[in-house]
Amino acid sequence: IVDGRQSPTAAAVQRGVCRLLIHMGFAPLTEFSLKTGRRIDVAGINAKGEIIAVEIKSSLTDFRADQKWEDYLDFCDRFFFAVPMEFPRDVLPEETGLIVADQFGAEILRDSPEDRLPAARRKAVTLLFARVAARRAHLAIDSGV
Amino acid sequence: IVDGRQSPTAAAVQRGVCRLLIHMGFAPLTEFSLKTGRRIDVAGINAKGEIIAVEIKSSLTDFRADQKWEDYLDFCDRFFFAVPMEFPRDVLPEETGLIVADQFGAEILRDSPEDRLPAARRKAVTLLFARVAARRAHLAIDSGV
Repeated sequence: IVDGRQSPTAAAVQRGVCRLLIHMGFAPLTEFSLKTGRRIDVAGINAKGEIIAVEIKSSLTDFRADQKWEDYLDFCDRFFFAVPMEFPRDVLPEETGLIVADQFGAEILRDSPEDRLPAARRKAVTLLFARVAARRAHLAIDSGV
Repeated sequence: IVDGRQSPTAAAVQRGVCRLLIHMGFAPLTEFSLKTGRRIDVAGINAKGEIIAVEIKSSLTDFRADQKWEDYLDFCDRFFFAVPMEFPRDVLPEETGLIVADQFGAEILRDSPEDRLPAARRKAVTLLFARVAARRAHLAIDSGV
């Protein structure tokens, strides 16, 4: 889902990230809104129930405009920034994962430390993920409701 | 998702059932394949994590060809048959829920008894639902992978 505010660069990175997540065994979900009102650019869940969150930064301006990424750490086991090739990577915090992506694919340059979700939070995030993904899939076949 | 084997009547019932589920607070997922190889015509999950399964029967022939509905009971809290208006409803088992539907909507004629899933099974079904729904939503925006 590409919303009106998303730049072509961010859309390309999102597409590549989704492909990478699938390759890694994670079902991807874009624009995943949490109960806090914050929105994960791309979330993923694998067969073990592990949850990844990816925050896309299309440019330095984009990165500087919003540095609330720590809010996401409570909702995932691993957190990555994803940026285009030309992004100045040395501004990014070193304690997170790092993905470089374009529209065709993506690559992990630095893995994320794992910080396992507590069971109750994992259960809640998984349920929310299931409901948002199902509504998204349904909208694609019946936009009337 | 309407596959090649689905009749226009079944597709209409599926559409109406999805709308009913949304109205009831359940995010709907069509053609939900379980690990057993069986496929739930429409599954739904609500904000409490309750899981509904709906088996569509478009005609008496369709009903007589496959009566394995009891297999689904282990994967949901409530089970319904969904049929078109003209379906001879008295052939259906009385111990399940019953929905009548067309392409515009649906109505519950008989509620289903509730048979709560064990926690471990609920967790597994919710995770599978999340992954299938996310892959479905992703296919709608990027069919290349």
